[in-house]
Amino acid sequence: MNLKKTIYFDYAATTYTDRRVVHAMKPYFSHIFGNAGSLHQFGRKAKLALEKARQQVADLIGAATDEIIFTGSGTESDNLAILGAAKAYKQKGQHLITSNIEHKAVLNPMKKLSQEGFEVDFLKVDYEGLLAVDQIQQAINNKTTLVSVIYASNEIGVIQPIAEIGKMIKEIRAKRKENAIDVPLIFHIDACQAAGYLSLDVNNLGVDLLTLNGSKIYGPKGVGVLYVRKGIMLEPIILGGDQEGGVRPGTENIPGTVGLGIALDIAQKIRQEESNREKSLRDYFIRRLIDEIPGVVLNGHATKRLPNNINISVLGIEGEAMLLWLDKYGIAASTGSACDSRHLEPSHVILALGKSHEYAHGSLRLTLGRKTTKREIDYFMNVFPKIVRQLRKISTIKHE
Amino acid sequence: MNLKKTIYFDYAATTYTDRRVVHAMKPYFSHIFGNAGSLHQFGRKAKLALEKARQQVADLIGAATDEIIFTGSGTESDNLAILGAAKAYKQKGQHLITSNIEHKAVLNPMKKLSQEGFEVDFLKVDYEGLLAVDQIQQAINNKTTLVSVIYASNEIGVIQPIAEIGKMIKEIRAKRKENAIDVPLIFHIDACQAAGYLSLDVNNLGVDLLTLNGSKIYGPKGVGVLYVRKGIMLEPIILGGDQEGGVRPGTENIPGTVGLGIALDIAQKIRQEESNREKSLRDYFIRRLIDEIPGVVLNGHATKRLPNNINISVLGIEGEAMLLWLDKYGIAASTGSACDSRHLEPSHVILALGKSHEYAHGSLRLTLGRKTTKREIDYFMNVFPKIVRQLRKISTIKHE
Repeated sequence: MNLKKTIYFDYAATTYTDRRVVHAMKPYFSHIFGNAGSLHQFGRKAKLALEKARQQVADLIGAATDEIIFTGSGTESDNLAILGAAKAYKQKGQHLITSNIEHKAVLNPMKKLSQEGFEVDFLKVDYEGLLAVDQIQQAINNKTTLVSVIYASNEIGVIQPIAEIGKMIKEIRAKRKENAIDVPLIFHIDACQAAGYLSLDVNNLGVDLLTLNGSKIYGPKGVGVLYVRKGIMLEPIILGGDQEGGVRPGTENIPGTVGLGIALDIAQKIRQEESNREKSLRDYFIRRLIDEIPGVVLNGHATKRLPNNINISVLGIEGEAMLLWLDKYGIAASTGSACDSRHLEPSHVILALGKSHEYAHGSLRLTLGRKTTKREIDYFMNVFPKIVRQLRKISTIKHE
Repeated sequence: MNLKKTIYFDYAATTYTDRRVVHAMKPYFSHIFGNAGSLHQFGRKAKLALEKARQQVADLIGAATDEIIFTGSGTESDNLAILGAAKAYKQKGQHLITSNIEHKAVLNPMKKLSQEGFEVDFLKVDYEGLLAVDQIQQAINNKTTLVSVIYASNEIGVIQPIAEIGKMIKEIRAKRKENAIDVPLIFHIDACQAAGYLSLDVNNLGVDLLTLNGSKIYGPKGVGVLYVRKGIMLEPIILGGDQEGGVRPGTENIPGTVGLGIALDIAQKIRQEESNREKSLRDYFIRRLIDEIPGVVLNGHATKRLPNNINISVLGIEGEAMLLWLDKYGIAASTGSACDSRHLEPSHVILALGKSHEYAHGSLRLTLGRKTTKREIDYFMNVFPKIVRQLRKISTIKHE
């Protein structure tokens, strides 16, 4: 077998930027460099590029251009959605709902709001990582203003029934209207991980706020999008000039927004084909992992998951130890979210599945992408069983 | 005269990105693309680049690396400094001081805090745009926790006596300590416009928080820096993962931070030479404007101003009308901050100089940069007097 020097199984942490995206961004650094707020030809050209990117994003998700806000990251979009909506409507109600497997960019603003007096329900997912529509429905009361759910988990790849939740929320809104209850019920989803694989049609999904970013879809880092359905008010989290409808000030990052537009366009155009390709690689990979290594379990639902996500627990060993050994063999993987990697705490998402600390400590996330090949998986399967045997020999955790 | 198609006199709105900066960023899009939080070789390489950029910025401003926070923009850095410090120390005191010529990224967070119960003094600058050290000193009381001053104005280029203010603040801190008054007094400056021309040595300046960004120093847009002196606490404005010491979460923008590091390095290395060059062009330009066009006054101090800033009021005409005509001749200029250009309100900075609305409405900002030549100024002076005569003929504003 032709050994590769490096194999990247961490596409969920971040993707490389597609060469077509870099190419599209290039003129906007040194040539068409104006401030989009300037009233001269340099400004107009910059503004034109910005609005073209906005149109591109809007078209891809079935929105209008004035519903697209560019931000500095997915994290910022999540924060603007949650802090922004909760605070804008706090006179109407102070009850918020989310799940216990959200990204920290959602969990932490929710916890902050809870400290500030909001009542927040962190709904428990089931053993496979799924929320039920009626579970959310039962949690909603007349003071609920916001429901925020991750479209597909960054850790276990589980895809939530967003369209069904959206439909249920719409019905509750209709009932509130009937009963003259003047409390908005806003539905936000974090679609950062989903954007490369699933439909983002905001009307089919029935969502009011939707978070996207560049760094997970072969686009640039440092740029995010928040879709904000017409009529929804947000209290800005950053204050300054009047860019992005006053909701998100700061000199517009033209190369970044242009890059994100192109990246999303490519991602959505190839998503069916690429999903099929990666799904078959994923299932091949999972089958081999479970068949060939004893004490391996899959975390999260087997089919309602992203085509690129594999998350396993390897009983009896520590995830970080596996990472270090894999890294020696040139293989990049992760134990969970890269955003939490500095702490060696077990993943809150694996724990949320109701699994023991042993499962959580032994979790390994392998995420595939556009350059992943069967050969890479075969190389991994050549190496990994040996690593597991070796680690189990020296492990202090007892293997059941 | 060889006519150029386009002349850019709006470097204060934003600069083009230096080719060396773009070149340095390039490998970090598609090759070294890892998530700096990942525990494998891709992550380590990204982290290495991030920390090198952090070291570069730290060295250039006389700081330690753990005092450098990367953000998404100058606006975000200003917000994090002001909202972050005011809220972190609100148990100690709720009095804040700033000037009435700040950028809106400072003014608007200050106004917000004032609505939330903080007492904020917006100190008036003098007729030339300057704050006096004793004016600030007199405003400070035992509940003052934060003073925020723009190092050099984005509109009129006036340079404030930062080192003197820093020294005075240090003395007050010493006195508070003597008198066992346990209230911090934090000094923040917005140095976005100053960074290309003035020293940023945080110890000589005596500042505790300092805002920088890429888009004004021939660096990338969409990336900012906040220097945070050791020991100072900030309440984050965005919540999520544990990046940037937990103060600013979000997947790190490696190309952006690398680009900002290089851009600041170049800017600071050539600043003396380039300042001298632009200063002589500036003074030549100002002299010709005042000598050759009746009813032109310079806004802001004549010498305590950035080497690249010219801000004049042309009595009897509207700034926007001048811009449109200049644009027809291929000349890019502005009336003030590009961040406010969507409103046709008079500049709050020109009004703050105690000048009438006529002055404010007739303001024109011409900002020079690395590619500005005497020939461009001469072309401008060939065109502009005619424009002024033409506009005064049709103007509805009475020329005194």
